[in-house]
Amino acid sequence: MPSTIGTVLTVTLFGQSHSPAVGCVVEGLPSGHHVDLDELQAFMDRRAPGRASWTTPRTEADIPRIVSGLNEHGRTCGTPLAALIENTNTRSQDYDELRRVPRPGHADFTAQAKWHGEQDVAGGGHFSARLTAPLCVAGGIALQLLAERGVRVAAHLAAVADVTDEPFCATELDDASRTRLTQQMDALADGRAFPVIDTRAGEAMQERIAQTRAEGDSVGGVVECVCTGLPAGIGSPIFDGIESTIARMVFGIPAVKGLEFGTGFAAAGLRGSQNNDRYRMRDGRPAPQTNHAGGNLGGITTGAPVLFRMAVKPTPSIAQEQDSVDLMAGTDARLAVRGRHDPCVAPRAVPVAEAAMALAVLDSWLAWPASDPSCDRY
Amino acid sequence: MPSTIGTVLTVTLFGQSHSPAVGCVVEGLPSGHHVDLDELQAFMDRRAPGRASWTTPRTEADIPRIVSGLNEHGRTCGTPLAALIENTNTRSQDYDELRRVPRPGHADFTAQAKWHGEQDVAGGGHFSARLTAPLCVAGGIALQLLAERGVRVAAHLAAVADVTDEPFCATELDDASRTRLTQQMDALADGRAFPVIDTRAGEAMQERIAQTRAEGDSVGGVVECVCTGLPAGIGSPIFDGIESTIARMVFGIPAVKGLEFGTGFAAAGLRGSQNNDRYRMRDGRPAPQTNHAGGNLGGITTGAPVLFRMAVKPTPSIAQEQDSVDLMAGTDARLAVRGRHDPCVAPRAVPVAEAAMALAVLDSWLAWPASDPSCDRY
Amino acid sequence: MPSTIGTVLTVTLFGQSHSPAVGCVVEGLPSGHHVDLDELQAFMDRRAPGRASWTTPRTEADIPRIVSGLNEHGRTCGTPLAALIENTNTRSQDYDELRRVPRPGHADFTAQAKWHGEQDVAGGGHFSARLTAPLCVAGGIALQLLAERGVRVAAHLAAVADVTDEPFCATELDDASRTRLTQQMDALADGRAFPVIDTRAGEAMQERIAQTRAEGDSVGGVVECVCTGLPAGIGSPIFDGIESTIARMVFGIPAVKGLEFGTGFAAAGLRGSQNNDRYRMRDGRPAPQTNHAGGNLGGITTGAPVLFRMAVKPTPSIAQEQDSVDLMAGTDARLAVRGRHDPCVAPRAVPVAEAAMALAVLDSWLAWPASDPSCDRY
Amino acid sequence: MPSTIGTVLTVTLFGQSHSPAVGCVVEGLPSGHHVDLDELQAFMDRRAPGRASWTTPRTEADIPRIVSGLNEHGRTCGTPLAALIENTNTRSQDYDELRRVPRPGHADFTAQAKWHGEQDVAGGGHFSARLTAPLCVAGGIALQLLAERGVRVAAHLAAVADVTDEPFCATELDDASRTRLTQQMDALADGRAFPVIDTRAGEAMQERIAQTRAEGDSVGGVVECVCTGLPAGIGSPIFDGIESTIARMVFGIPAVKGLEFGTGFAAAGLRGSQNNDRYRMRDGRPAPQTNHAGGNLGGITTGAPVLFRMAVKPTPSIAQEQDSVDLMAGTDARLAVRGRHDPCVAPRAVPVAEAAMALAVLDSWLAWPASDPSCDRY
Repeated sequence: MPSTIGTVLTVTLFGQSHSPAVGCVVEGLPSGHHVDLDELQAFMDRRAPGRASWTTPRTEADIPRIVSGLNEHGRTCGTPLAALIENTNTRSQDYDELRRVPRPGHADFTAQAKWHGEQDVAGGGHFSARLTAPLCVAGGIALQLLAERGVRVAAHLAAVADVTDEPFCATELDDASRTRLTQQMDALADGRAFPVIDTRAGEAMQERIAQTRAEGDSVGGVVECVCTGLPAGIGSPIFDGIESTIARMVFGIPAVKGLEFGTGFAAAGLRGSQNNDRYRMRDGRPAPQTNHAGGNLGGITTGAPVLFRMAVKPTPSIAQEQDSVDLMAGTDARLAVRGRHDPCVAPRAVPVAEAAMALAVLDSWLAWPASDPSCDRY
Repeated sequence: MPSTIGTVLTVTLFGQSHSPAVGCVVEGLPSGHHVDLDELQAFMDRRAPGRASWTTPRTEADIPRIVSGLNEHGRTCGTPLAALIENTNTRSQDYDELRRVPRPGHADFTAQAKWHGEQDVAGGGHFSARLTAPLCVAGGIALQLLAERGVRVAAHLAAVADVTDEPFCATELDDASRTRLTQQMDALADGRAFPVIDTRAGEAMQERIAQTRAEGDSVGGVVECVCTGLPAGIGSPIFDGIESTIARMVFGIPAVKGLEFGTGFAAAGLRGSQNNDRYRMRDGRPAPQTNHAGGNLGGITTGAPVLFRMAVKPTPSIAQEQDSVDLMAGTDARLAVRGRHDPCVAPRAVPVAEAAMALAVLDSWLAWPASDPSCDRY
Repeated sequence: MPSTIGTVLTVTLFGQSHSPAVGCVVEGLPSGHHVDLDELQAFMDRRAPGRASWTTPRTEADIPRIVSGLNEHGRTCGTPLAALIENTNTRSQDYDELRRVPRPGHADFTAQAKWHGEQDVAGGGHFSARLTAPLCVAGGIALQLLAERGVRVAAHLAAVADVTDEPFCATELDDASRTRLTQQMDALADGRAFPVIDTRAGEAMQERIAQTRAEGDSVGGVVECVCTGLPAGIGSPIFDGIESTIARMVFGIPAVKGLEFGTGFAAAGLRGSQNNDRYRMRDGRPAPQTNHAGGNLGGITTGAPVLFRMAVKPTPSIAQEQDSVDLMAGTDARLAVRGRHDPCVAPRAVPVAEAAMALAVLDSWLAWPASDPSCDRY
Repeated sequence: MPSTIGTVLTVTLFGQSHSPAVGCVVEGLPSGHHVDLDELQAFMDRRAPGRASWTTPRTEADIPRIVSGLNEHGRTCGTPLAALIENTNTRSQDYDELRRVPRPGHADFTAQAKWHGEQDVAGGGHFSARLTAPLCVAGGIALQLLAERGVRVAAHLAAVADVTDEPFCATELDDASRTRLTQQMDALADGRAFPVIDTRAGEAMQERIAQTRAEGDSVGGVVECVCTGLPAGIGSPIFDGIESTIARMVFGIPAVKGLEFGTGFAAAGLRGSQNNDRYRMRDGRPAPQTNHAGGNLGGITTGAPVLFRMAVKPTPSIAQEQDSVDLMAGTDARLAVRGRHDPCVAPRAVPVAEAAMALAVLDSWLAWPASDPSCDRY
């Protein structure tokens, strides 16, 4: 099921950029959770387009309508929750043109190859970043369920091109570092318009984005995401490890080209004596002293923060005219991408990363084989 | 199913480091394929331990016994293929000690937390890199099936610490670059003992590994893997894209901490005008001119080489004594990891990366909805 | 995924009897199929309530709104097709009463036990037969795809209580029997209001139903369903055989309590020499001479008609007052089921059986491993 | 995954009648369960051939070798349990003959059609009833886990042709009926060689079987299976109801052609007022007074015994010469089935039915969303 993910908590995404609606079906939500619709909307708004100079001017209300899965008290009733977001701001398009000349960097050509020309071409169809809206509906609900369990998730824009934000303080696990990480997460939860820890870095990033847009170009970035408050023991062996679970979801987000956990690629340059996270007793419990592992070993959580970084490529839609081909004529062609585009999609990918983290972590938690969920019985 | 992966072509891994056997079940193999057992064994031997100074001295014959799935002609018969590898070289171990003091960087602690002390502790149990042996059985068969379809897979050790090999020539797609990539793949297929393109880089890597081992330490590396000969149109949308499929498998390989496709993390620093792969007609067919995308857009192949790099952390087992805890006593403890270990697991991860690529690509291909598999009907 | 079924062609049902909407998501539809919305509506109308004296007076337009999965030509575009049916005719209900006193024969008590009182109680929630409406959307599209492949599906009401219709002529496979089966299927396709082959039997059944309703009671029935035009070789071994696939779906239809294929339970009383379907050459092809097997052996089609019968229990909602309990007070109670009910649900289960057959068969067909789909190459 | 079943507790079967081995992989077993190998062997022996006059003279030791999934204490360790049964008593066969002339009633023809002649023909390959041996390994372990939870499963041979055993006393739920059901289950657990409640009925059945065998023929039967001790609330909506789950498994057992729950097909002839199971308080808890439903409503357990009956067709292998075709010559042919066969497979299907019940019930239980498993909080 290509547009479905999850083991116990599953999410199915449907819709195309210009179909009547996009939406999701979420199966496996524990019953009895009150879905806070205002909080969900606030989360959706962080992803929504048209809110700032760095996003596409296409504006969509992005208000999800939940058509099933709640009981009369607005609480999850144990059966599939379906939500719809109407596509109100679609535009009539020149379908013939779209079908002939694929946009470089988009899935136009590959969708054509896969479905022999029957794909929905308008706006990228099912491959549009618009599908991250229903992913955020599912993720927003997962975040609420995790909050009830004492788990927090936060992400920020770690880099735009070579302008970098302060990284999450999640490799050292001493008291001072824990305090700093909490401060960082609090700051990000504070509703800031541009999702960075260091607001000056954020200004530099926005400047870079504005400049790139002015040149008819786009730019990439890196999103960093952290999850705290998880007990040890979440995740399952081999292909259902927390890393595999997050990875399958993260690479389902349009434009992501790289993913690393904890020290990540830099670990390839370290020695075992540097990269190993040693244990010490802490408040009567075993705890890793450092967190090069990004909060998991063998795909199972250690109790330390789970942390990943994902690389977001520059938006393929650029104002500059580009080389392409005419698939019907079988000739070379030139293409000027029209339409409304983000010069940098990375900022809007920040809440999407949180949604992915929340869904992957909650699914792994629910899939955890029963019995005592404490990890203190050593 | 945590130890199972795949949509149409599925692989289930079973076994623990010191259980009677490890093995795999492969469902969904097309019928009628003659499994070349010699070729399979040659592939297995590339992963097997005990062959060189840079691996663990634990020697295992690693000869898979196929107990089902073949007909009387040795051809796949359409039903599950099961293969076993006996664990002949297990050692009696001090289980109590293993259960008390978790090794930093291994899954000992997390397995204990997850299964409340019922995990198989010996040698890392189901989390042992030994489980990559049956993964290579499945992958080795997938490689044979892909070869019949004109598809090649190759991997090499791109880096050990800061010593780097020549990278695959797979970003440019002009004739000279294609020739060079073929030469690189041919060289790697030539049975060289140490899996690098540039043998001098390989010598420097082996020296670095030897030196690290002498210091009682270990070191990490990067593996790069490429796949050529694929038609456009393989992979499915969103969560079953070729990147998501590879990612779930690659993060199931022990010690992998990062993964990137094509230009990967470096794409975050590029502009759209640099990173987009423009199309031109080539021999009457549309083709991307460059391959920053790593052979796929929207998770669906473009026809260009699929390329990934994965970061392998330094082996957590090191000879140096390390801090840990005594889980039963609830006290701090010191641990000297005994046993036989690779000072660098990255070289042996090279065929495993090929196995992962082959399984992910073949599964995506088989899952491709029927109808004409050509992509020339535009 | 409890409310999802299928391997390659998957259907997810969502909604509750009185939620804003019910609907389905269908993944895995081959691209390029033109969905005939009029034909789909005609199929939906056969299931819809409020059309005849033998159904519930609750009237719902039951017009599905397809919100994704089609391209601009109205053809499937390869990505998930989602359809919604608004619940327009819901009634405000006394939720407290519904939650206290479970209706015998309905899932009220079991849903309460499973979800600890958080289930949606109104109208049976997710367990309502209303969920067969979106199942018929998915099934109606599957029927169209099968028709393109030369496959026909038909069902009829084989029995109401002890009043029986003429059975499908599908056990003998001689020319006369084939002609008769075609005539039977043609007659049923002729838009008759009451789905029987023998209209006089139908009149007797309707009389029986009317009489039962007059007595404040309900009655059960049997639905028989046949599928012709399938090639041999569809279905997969063991748990994905065509029988297992149909069975999982059929027992997902509310009120079904029994299922048999071909000669079914009667085969238990036969001898092998009677029950075996011998082969003879027919028009140059091997063909079974009889069809006790119901069109499959080992779960794989033989080319003969696939045939099943399913037992439908009497509607549990009856006008007579019944014994129950008050779950909150912990006391015995009496219950009079209010609301609008079918005195016999079996007639409306007829198109649902066709939907189930179509979805199971098409999914099995699409899951069929590639290569030449002909079965004449012996 | 055709040869795999289950949601949380999954079973994969592999092997062919004459491959080196048959076996299973069981994923999702809760950790910490001590597998009683003697008890497992005793269960296996009930299915094993060659023990009595009514079975095939092919004798196989059928001793499973568990190669993974246990820790050093013989307890489940949370990771996949794999078991092998060697095929020691295979015979060299005339493969060419087997491939040419399909046996009526077996899957020879359909496997040929599906895999284009690449199937393993010997002894029915993967479709052989021999595959029920590893199913019984998995089921035997599930039975042990259920026993720890206070759940019992029993099956008996309800009919051979028209000779019937006393049925389970599971429709009435008063004290006397409960006592009688317990007596019936105790009697069956008493190790009797022929699995019936009424031993005189058993004698008549064996006589009937012997007589049929003497005539070179075979005969069918019915197996009835019951499960007691389950709490209310097990099973999931729509397609993962306990009935759908059991059904998919039961129709995976060779020769099964019908399945019914509780009153089953007979319910089609009843009125709602007869078939509804009314509730009364019993010992302070709500409980159904009768059990026409077979222990579930909406696919979710009520707390009453889950009961199913399955129809087993007469063994297709009979000594009499039969009509068939020569698939290679394209001509009619005659076939005398050689080899060793059960004249009635139903007796050996009795433990298989228990295995199927146990696996389906335990999987549904483990898949039950977390939170308080009691159902007394009304």
